[in-house]
Parts: sequence; structure tokens; C-alpha cells
Amino acid sequence: MTLEKIESPSVLVDLNIVENNIKAYQAYCNKMQVSLRPHIKTHKIPELAKAQVKAGAVGITCQKISEAEAIISEGGISDILITFNILGEKKLNRLRLLSEKVKLSVVADNFQCLEGLSSAFKDAKSQLTVLVECDTGASRCGVISPNSACNLAKKIETLPGLIFGGIMTYPPISQSEKINSFLLNTKNLIEEQGIRVPIISFGGSPNMWEIEKIPVGNEYRIGTYIYNDRSLMNRGNCSEDNCALSVLATVISTPEAHRAVIDAGSKILTSDLFGLKGYGYIIGYPKLVISSLSEEHGCIIGEECTGLKIGQKIRIIPNHACVVSNMMDEVIFLRGKNFIKRQPVLGRGKVW
Amino acid sequence: MTLEKIESPSVLVDLNIVENNIKAYQAYCNKMQVSLRPHIKTHKIPELAKAQVKAGAVGITCQKISEAEAIISEGGISDILITFNILGEKKLNRLRLLSEKVKLSVVADNFQCLEGLSSAFKDAKSQLTVLVECDTGASRCGVISPNSACNLAKKIETLPGLIFGGIMTYPPISQSEKINSFLLNTKNLIEEQGIRVPIISFGGSPNMWEIEKIPVGNEYRIGTYIYNDRSLMNRGNCSEDNCALSVLATVISTPEAHRAVIDAGSKILTSDLFGLKGYGYIIGYPKLVISSLSEEHGCIIGEECTGLKIGQKIRIIPNHACVVSNMMDEVIFLRGKNFIKRQPVLGRGKVW
Repeated sequence: MTLEKIESPSVLVDLNIVENNIKAYQAYCNKMQVSLRPHIKTHKIPELAKAQVKAGAVGITCQKISEAEAIISEGGISDILITFNILGEKKLNRLRLLSEKVKLSVVADNFQCLEGLSSAFKDAKSQLTVLVECDTGASRCGVISPNSACNLAKKIETLPGLIFGGIMTYPPISQSEKINSFLLNTKNLIEEQGIRVPIISFGGSPNMWEIEKIPVGNEYRIGTYIYNDRSLMNRGNCSEDNCALSVLATVISTPEAHRAVIDAGSKILTSDLFGLKGYGYIIGYPKLVISSLSEEHGCIIGEECTGLKIGQKIRIIPNHACVVSNMMDEVIFLRGKNFIKRQPVLGRGKVW
Repeated sequence: MTLEKIESPSVLVDLNIVENNIKAYQAYCNKMQVSLRPHIKTHKIPELAKAQVKAGAVGITCQKISEAEAIISEGGISDILITFNILGEKKLNRLRLLSEKVKLSVVADNFQCLEGLSSAFKDAKSQLTVLVECDTGASRCGVISPNSACNLAKKIETLPGLIFGGIMTYPPISQSEKINSFLLNTKNLIEEQGIRVPIISFGGSPNMWEIEKIPVGNEYRIGTYIYNDRSLMNRGNCSEDNCALSVLATVISTPEAHRAVIDAGSKILTSDLFGLKGYGYIIGYPKLVISSLSEEHGCIIGEECTGLKIGQKIRIIPNHACVVSNMMDEVIFLRGKNFIKRQPVLGRGKVW
């Protein structure tokens, strides 16, 4: 089957590029001497998670329990970190069930969360590893001071069923000195209490090639590198040739020479802009702008003539790959222009 | 089951409000003497489409063939307008199959599209009704002049398998005089050719209560009114009490008094802003702002203290209901605070 025969809109994933991306970033992490723990939220596909582990990743990162449940459904994954505060009886029960299937660790940034985890794991066969989440400037979850982190570490050590695993941050973009000093101070404070800090986990795509700026870290979490996207192209983190995921769309209308409309809108490309102009990069048409999206229409603007024809198929590198792969029940695996198979996105929509 | 027992994040739909919204807008259209043809892209649920038809809608609107296929899967729907240029052999074959199950009409804005439709329907049992899409200022699909619309109408009348059904527009916001005159001129031009113009279809949520401003129109297409959302609250089109859809989320972290983090991010609330500040309205907390979303986290900011506690459940009216209901495989039907059932969103992700 050629590209022309694939229904549009579809999400295409080139496995040749995927494999190169996995290999290249694993090699970089090896060179930097940090463990790589890929975030599977980007692809939500067991087969790709297994490929990441096979290439050398120490395990995977998930954001939600249901995502982890989906990703282990085919076997082959034995080590998962869930980087989310888990609260509530139902979720805690599911977390414990999950812990019986894989080596599991989670993060927490508050006492209430720790107490819930302990009550669920106090009579479990093995202890749950808990990392303390630190806010090093991203203003999302995480304790805001090394002292608070140290207090949580001490608490973890006293609570039945839990074991302190280290510290974790989702770092802001480009504040490496602040991040490193926060993490180093936290590590020192905790070690002064006689508690080991095995893992110092950081990550993120924007600064993916600047790992040396956070020397205290020893584990890197990152999702997008497996596919890459326009936002990372724009930062110079990758080139067009490194982008494995694209959206196949068809031109359905050319109402004026400088305007065209495609059959892909916000229900596939999403509204994520990430500060960019337009909703994606059209391969082969660098000057065209996807200027607006309705739910199922995308509007393309050219300076004079778009050069696009009704019925023509185009491929778009989206601004943000991680949200696009979450829109479709399946993606199309390719190698170059060769169709390989339809691939269910088993973790799609798993937000619990 | 009470709200407290429902897993978060979930999308909740209050059927009492849904029924009131269906009834109220049908009554308005009856009073305005226009046919109502609800767009089911908002809910993508057969049961709700049937309720809209039962209340008096002449049929439904779908954006994609796969959406229509899903929505008729339970029976009870007999009249569908697909407001999209259908191109390509596979889609045309599916369109013809669909036409054997329901009274079907589509739109087109170019000759190539018409030729494809004709080739698929020239030997069909019954003709396909085609409306000409007109761009009355929204700059999406549609011919840009009444003359072009007239030429397409004439072409439809000559092509085997097709019958001209009228004209259709997805109108821009607040340009009613221009819209009315475009549609009226088009109607007159076509009628001068001896061709009847049975349907003049317009629509949209922003101007939903101003139907009288387009007196030439006789059919109204609208989606969001069944659920309503923050964007329509903000326009004064509805009140908080008319919003049937909300996102149930749990506060998972309160790192500082003025900040809280919830377990709902862009993979449920979406990044649609519609010019609003923040990513949704938190019921009961009008002063709090959902200031940023990651994929699975939502960050809430208050002026001083948010008043939110870890573990607390909150309900959010999203900026744009139509994209939120597309994120989840199922929604929760409620009546007031009473759980009714889990409801699959059969049309979710149906973009073909």
C-alpha cells in the first residue's frame, strides 16, 4: 500500500526514523552517563516502549496508572516510574495491583499523598519506591524548597510499605544552575539525615541535548525524542528528517489561489501552538502556514499561490507530537514510503 | 454512586440540562420558523442524536462519514447532512453505502468534488442531494461569489446521480447583513436558472439567538447548544446552569497557598482558549484561573489562597465542549448529582 492509498486524515509513524531516534538518544545518555527512562505518553504503544527498553533504557515513565496498565498489556516491560501524585482508594488499589506485575516507583510532593500510598502498601509483598517531586522552577507539582523535600524523604522512611527512592523534577526550560543547585542542596540535606538518594531524576525535551548542565542528575526522563515534532525542530533539537510522526491530510478545497483547506483540524492536529506561528509544518511547503483550525478543517495560507491542488495528499509535522498521537485510536506504521501495519494506540485517552 | 466515587478525571454530562437545552433551542427554532439540524460533533453519542430528532429536529449534521456511521449504529436516525467535501474512492464508496441506510445529503464547493460524487452515485438507487457551500466571510470552505455558487448548482443539475438541494454556509460571527445578502443573491441567481433552492442552511453557536438577522435562511445547524460551554457563557448565550458538560478533576497538589494542581490537563480539557483567560471555569470558584495545562496536569492560580485542598474534587466547565467530549472513550451520564450510567462516545476520534 502506498501513501496515496491510506485514508486521510491519519497519523503516520516512520519506524526507520523511530529506531534512529531511539538509538541516537540512548547513545547520548550513555555518553553522558545518565540512565534514560523514556516517557511513553508520547506514543502510548507497548511495542515502542519495548524497543526503548531493548535499546538500553532502564525502564519507562508513565503519567497515569491506566497508561501503565495499557503499556504492560503485551508484556516485556518490567520497570515503571509514574510521575504523578496518586490519590484516592480506587487508584491506590490499582497501583498496588500494578506493583505486583512490575518494579514500580511513584513520586509524591505532599504528606497526604504519602499517607495514602503507605496505607495501600503497608501489607504489600514488596515496598513501593517513592521519589520526592521538587519544583525547581516549572511551577507545577513539587515541593518548593530543599527543606520540604527533606521532610518528605524522612517521612517516607518512617511510613510502612514505602521506601525512599530519590528526588525528581520536571525542570523548567533553561534554568540549569538553579535546578542543579536545588537538587544538590536537597540531596545533601537528605544525606545528612543518613538517607541515601539513589535516583536524581530530571528530564524534558527542550533541553534534551544539555544534560551536562545538570551534573547532579543521574536519570533522564523524556518523551518526544522518539517522534520529534515541529516545536523541537524550531528549537534546533532535531531536523525535519528526524521527525517520525506526521499527519496525512487531503486538500479538500482551494477556494482562492492563496488559500487551501484540508481535512485535518483540531481533532487531530490539536490546538497546541507552543508559541509557533501556525498549526504544523507542511513537508515540502516551508512557506505555507496552517493559519487556523476548526475541529475537522485546517486552513492553509500562502503568500500568493499555495500550489496545492484539490485531492492532493500532504504530510504535516505537528507542533506537538505527544498530543496528536493521543487523538487517534490507531496510527499507521511505515518504513519510508512503505506501509507496514495499522498500530492501535493502546494508551490513548488513558487519563486515570 | 455519588460524584465523590467517580474516578477523576472524567467528563460528566447532566441529562436534565441536556434535555432542557434540546427543548429550549428547538422551541426557539420553531418560533423562528427555521428547521433545526443539530451538529452531533459536539456529543458524538447516538442516544443524544435521537433525543434531538425526537424533540423536532429535521435530521442531524455530521462532519465526517465515519462520524455518521457511528451515530446511526443504534438506528433511529434517518436524515443526515454531511457538511464536508467528500473526495477519494474509498470515502465515496462508504458514502454510497451510507446513502442506502439514511436520507443523505452532502455539501460541495468545487467541480472536482461534484464529479467524484456523481461517479459514485450515477448508478445508485436514489440520487444524492448536494448543497453548494458558500463562503460568506468565514474564509474556510465555500465558493466566494454567488456566481460561482450558481455555476455549481447548474453543474449538479446536469450530473447523473446528483440532485441540487440548496445552499449552505458556515457563517462568520456577526456579519449578518453580508451573509443574508450573499445567500439571497445566490438564491435569486440560481432560481433565475429555473432551479429550485429548497434549503438555505446556516448555523453556528456564537449567533445562536440571532436567527432573525438572516431571514433568507430556513435551516439552522448548531452543535454546542446541547451541552453549552464557557465560551458561550462568556458570550451571554447561556448561563452556568445551562452547561451540561463538565470535567471532574481532583486536586493532587497545593504547593503554595495561591497555587493548586489538578489531574486534568490538555489531554482532557484541550488547549482551546477561544480568546478566554484560562482553560475553563471552575464551578463554585469564579475567581480561580486554570492558568496553564500540561498534558495531564492543570495549574490553578488564585489571587491569594485558592481555598482548594488536596484530594478535593472540582468540576470545570471547559472553554469548548465539542473538543472535550472527543477526548474520552466514555462520558458519565448524571441527573443532578445522581449517577445514571457510563456512556460510550461512539463517534469519538472518527475523523475519516
